This record gives sequence, C-alpha cells and structure tokens, in this order.
Amino acid sequence: MRIALDAMGGDHAPQVTVEGAVWAAREYGLEVALVGREELLAAELAKHDTAGLSLPLIQASEVIDMKDEPAAAAKAKQDSSMVVGMNLVKGGQADGFFSAGNSGGVMAAALFRLGRLPGIKRPALTALYPTARGSCVVLDIGANTDCKAEWLLQFGIMGSAYAETALGIQRPKVGIVSNGEEEGKGSTLVKEAYVLLKESPLNFIGNVEGKDIPAGLADVVVTDGLTGNVIIKLSEGLTKFLTGVIEKEIRSSALTALGGALARPAFKRAKKVLDYSEVGGAPLLGVNGVVLVGHGRSDAKAIKNGIGAAQRGASGGMLAAIAASLADMGL
Amino acid sequence: MRIALDAMGGDHAPQVTVEGAVWAAREYGLEVALVGREELLAAELAKHDTAGLSLPLIQASEVIDMKDEPAAAAKAKQDSSMVVGMNLVKGGQADGFFSAGNSGGVMAAALFRLGRLPGIKRPALTALYPTARGSCVVLDIGANTDCKAEWLLQFGIMGSAYAETALGIQRPKVGIVSNGEEEGKGSTLVKEAYVLLKESPLNFIGNVEGKDIPAGLADVVVTDGLTGNVIIKLSEGLTKFLTGVIEKEIRSSALTALGGALARPAFKRAKKVLDYSEVGGAPLLGVNGVVLVGHGRSDAKAIKNGIGAAQRGASGGMLAAIAASLADMGL
Repeated sequence: MRIALDAMGGDHAPQVTVEGAVWAAREYGLEVALVGREELLAAELAKHDTAGLSLPLIQASEVIDMKDEPAAAAKAKQDSSMVVGMNLVKGGQADGFFSAGNSGGVMAAALFRLGRLPGIKRPALTALYPTARGSCVVLDIGANTDCKAEWLLQFGIMGSAYAETALGIQRPKVGIVSNGEEEGKGSTLVKEAYVLLKESPLNFIGNVEGKDIPAGLADVVVTDGLTGNVIIKLSEGLTKFLTGVIEKEIRSSALTALGGALARPAFKRAKKVLDYSEVGGAPLLGVNGVVLVGHGRSDAKAIKNGIGAAQRGASGGMLAAIAASLADMGL
Repeated sequence: MRIALDAMGGDHAPQVTVEGAVWAAREYGLEVALVGREELLAAELAKHDTAGLSLPLIQASEVIDMKDEPAAAAKAKQDSSMVVGMNLVKGGQADGFFSAGNSGGVMAAALFRLGRLPGIKRPALTALYPTARGSCVVLDIGANTDCKAEWLLQFGIMGSAYAETALGIQRPKVGIVSNGEEEGKGSTLVKEAYVLLKESPLNFIGNVEGKDIPAGLADVVVTDGLTGNVIIKLSEGLTKFLTGVIEKEIRSSALTALGGALARPAFKRAKKVLDYSEVGGAPLLGVNGVVLVGHGRSDAKAIKNGIGAAQRGASGGMLAAIAASLADMGL
C-alpha cells in the first residue's frame, strides 16, 4: 500500500507533513510518497530517523495555497503538489492521497484529474464529527451550496458506504438535517430529498435537528454545503467559546483555580474526544479515487492520522462500495 | 405599563408562570395580566405574597399546547390564552405579550390577531445568542424555511432595530450566515441578499461563518429559518454534549473529581453565561405588536426575564424603530 501525501499542504508544511509522514510510515508499515519541492523535503527528512522506512520523494515545483482561487489554480498549476499527487492516484502509483491544504484546491484538482465516479452528480466534502456515541459522517460541508434533492440522496449513499467500509458501521443510520423531527418539516429541498431517501434502500431515520447531531442519533448526516459548513464551523467556534468561558471562570478564584489544576487531566481527555486531529482526514466522496482532506491547522499527529484514514479508505473498498450502492439503485 | 402573560404556556405552567409573574411585577414595578383558566391561576396566586402588586386575571378557557398544529389551533381555539392575550395587545389593554408555549402557535395567533407591520413580508422568530462579547440577535430561527432575498434584508432591518432599541446597541453590526467570509461565497439566496444588505443603510459587515457567531463578530445574524434553527438547536445540543464529556472525565478519577468539586462554582457561573433563562424571551419580529416567545422549558426566572424583555420591547419603541427603518428605505 502506498499513500501519496501533499507535503506542501497545510499551515505548518513541510515541517509537520514530513514529521507526520515518518510517523505514519512507521506506525502503519506504509509507503508514504512525499509530493512537493524535493530539496525542501529532503532537508526536512534529514532531521528524522527514517531507517527501514519507505518515504520516496516526488518532485512538484508549485504549491496551491490558501489564497489561490481553487479551480483556476488547479488548472494553472499543473506541477503543484496537489495535481502531481492526483496524477499518482490516477496512474495507479498511489492507492490514495491526503492533503491538509486548500480544500477547494484539492476538490478542483481531484475533479480535473480523477473525475467523478460513474453516476455521481456532485462530489461532497465530508467531515467526521465527534458525538456522544462515537462519530458521525457529515456531508456536504461546503462543496455544493445550491443543492438538488437527487444530490442529497447521493450524499446519503456515499456517506453510508464510507461509514460502512472505513468506519465499520453496519447499516449506518442516515438522517437529513431539518428544523424539526417530523416528516414534512423543512425547506422544499429537504422535503423532496426526504422522499427520495425514504424510498431508497438506505437505513433512513428521517429528519435530524441540530441537537441530534452531537447526540449521535445518526451515523450519516446529510445536508447542503452551506448548512453543513455552518454545522462544522459553529461547532469549532462554540467549543472554543465554551471551554474559554469555563477556563476563565476557573481562573477567577484561588479555590476554583486549584480545582481546575487538579481536574486538568480530565479537561485534556475531554479535549481529545473533541479533537479533529484524532480523526485527521475526511474523505472527498464521489471522485474516482481515494482522496482525503485534512484541516489546514493539522499538526504532525493529524497528518499521521490523515494518512491512516487514506489507507483505511483505500483498503476498505470504499469506491467499490459506493459504485455497488449506486448500481443497486439503478443510478 | 401592562404586560400580558400566557399563564398556560410552557412545560411547567401554571406554577412557574404565576411565580415568574409575581417576581416580575415586584422587580419591575409592572402590571402583569395573567391570561388563562381563572380558577387555576387564582389557586396558584394564593400561594404567593402579592400584597401591593397588580396581577389581574384574564379568563381564557382553552390552551394551545405543544402537540397542536399551530395555524389550525390558533383559528379553532378563539378562547385560548394565546389568542385572548393577542386580543389584549390589539385592543390596547396590554403593551406587550409573553408566552413560553408552542412558538408556532404564538406566531399563528399573532399573525391572525395583530397582523404584520406595514411593508413587512414575513415575521421572523428571533433568538438571543450568548457570545464572547455579550449576545447577538439571530433570525430567522424557524418561521420561514424557504426564504427570498428581500425577506433576509427585512430580517436584517428588524433585527437591527431590536438590537438598538431593546438591547441598547448603537449601529448594530449585521452579518449574513455563509460558508465563507469573502463576498461571493454562499448559496444563490445568500449572494442575492448580500447585495441588498450591502446597498442598505444598515451597518452590514458581510458574511459570517459558523465560528464567528459565538465569537460575537456580529450583533445581528441574518439567516433562513432552517439554518437559524440548526444554529440554535446545535448550540443547545453541543453545549450539553461538551459539558457532559467534561463532567464524565472529571468523575473518572478521585483526584480530578476533587478538582471538579472545588471548581464547581466556576462551572455554575459558566453555565449561567450560556443559560437561556438569563435572557428569557426572544421577540417575534414583524408582527404589529410586541410579542415575546420563551423556551418551553422556562423556569420562573426565565418567565420573569421574558416579561422584562417584553417591557423593554414595549418601552424602547421597537415597533416604531422598525417602521422608521422600513420607511427610510422606501419599503
């Protein structure tokens, strides 16, 4: 198994990407191809003990950064680490690709180089969301803002196949985000997609409200890209706000500060439960290849876990499972 | 000043509604008209010391409860506490109305009895959302799922007038919820509404992402009713999940449990910051009267605060401010 890594992608590349790659190669016994500026990557690699590890360097002279307009950059920068990485997947020289760079750029490069899976109307950006029962798959989280009901059905199919093959959840429960639990609640789009999901062979549980997502009511949460993006970013912001308020209150008196110090290990564990870096990478579903996207702020551990998620995606038969579901449903 | 209270509305009515009314009458020096089943309310009132307070009972034999279909119930139950309360406002016998009952029922009763403010296309359900800088006004949170750009502009106008007159915020910063900060990000609806808001005299700050809401970037957060509903309910669910994870981790060892016990006053204060009952009531904006809606789970304090919010809405000239803004803009 060989995973290609966008060694130039993310806020702290190439230091943390190279560190994460070394870590992943050792922990998972994988070959990790580092795609980017060779001389930079070689210098970073030299800082690590890589004896016995397979970490080939693949030259790519350009970088698609956070400021680039995704589609234009993916077209113009043919020698960027993202495009070169996609070419490795397309040519069969890599089983999957992981990037913590500009997620729009990853999407555009994947669409141009790999294309869509047969039958898929729109690929979806996906997130793994920590819940009271483990984690759920939320999609779309930003690739498609104006959606059609059929796309939402396909998001359900793809999310369900991913939850089954990469997360090991049997018959994942699929819900659609709405402003009420009852059938008939929601926008016209939600009501139309509800009917399609209900008629499909998916394990559809109906509408889920905002509060049901962290409660873990559904394994797969289907929504349009605007609402999904708000769900992910609001959760990030609210977690920061809540822990900030608690920490401020704890520091406000000597007694509560002492209590806070004693309780610190508990806080650390709680933060770990909610930490994106434990997950590391979320799949770009619907493109013809295994492509995982990580958070721009990824640290070495998140990069390592992202590479691991790409490995699971590639070995679990995610693409075949999506294709089979689509075929089952005559799509 | 006389505020009418739906004494039958909410999960714990009439006990907590009567208790909250007594509290409000004493704290704010207000007349609070208790609308509902007279004999029930008289029995509750008898449990309190009401010497010197003005708490008239207004008979209403019916109740619109949580299971009722709002529009049908508001039409059929003409002697319900909601409809009778609205009649008091319409007839000038009350300056404002507060209910912690079925919010759809309040909306329907308000539309039937009070109607819309001249020029307003759709009323909006509004929430006060605690942020790092105080609180912001979020609307719509569930009354309108399929919106038009012009409605979102009007939500901005109404939210801004409310933030100014009832919360005392000068030139409130108005943002629209989107999946990216930059102009041009968002659905077709968001992009159209962006242009209208930008051209308006409002203090429009552009797109806000999910994470910007708890950070307090905007004083008024404009969105469609589905997304707004998800924002409010997700925040409720995530707060519960996060504090649950922290509490579970704290209880998991003797040392962290001791720390947690010492830090408890800090947790209590933190929860207070995030507590809806501190706010008590959110306005139904766009109807021709001051109408505030509270959470079904409201306790006596939330009822008291909701009555206080109705008083501020009535005395601050909220309706006049909305009407003036609309006139300014030729709407």
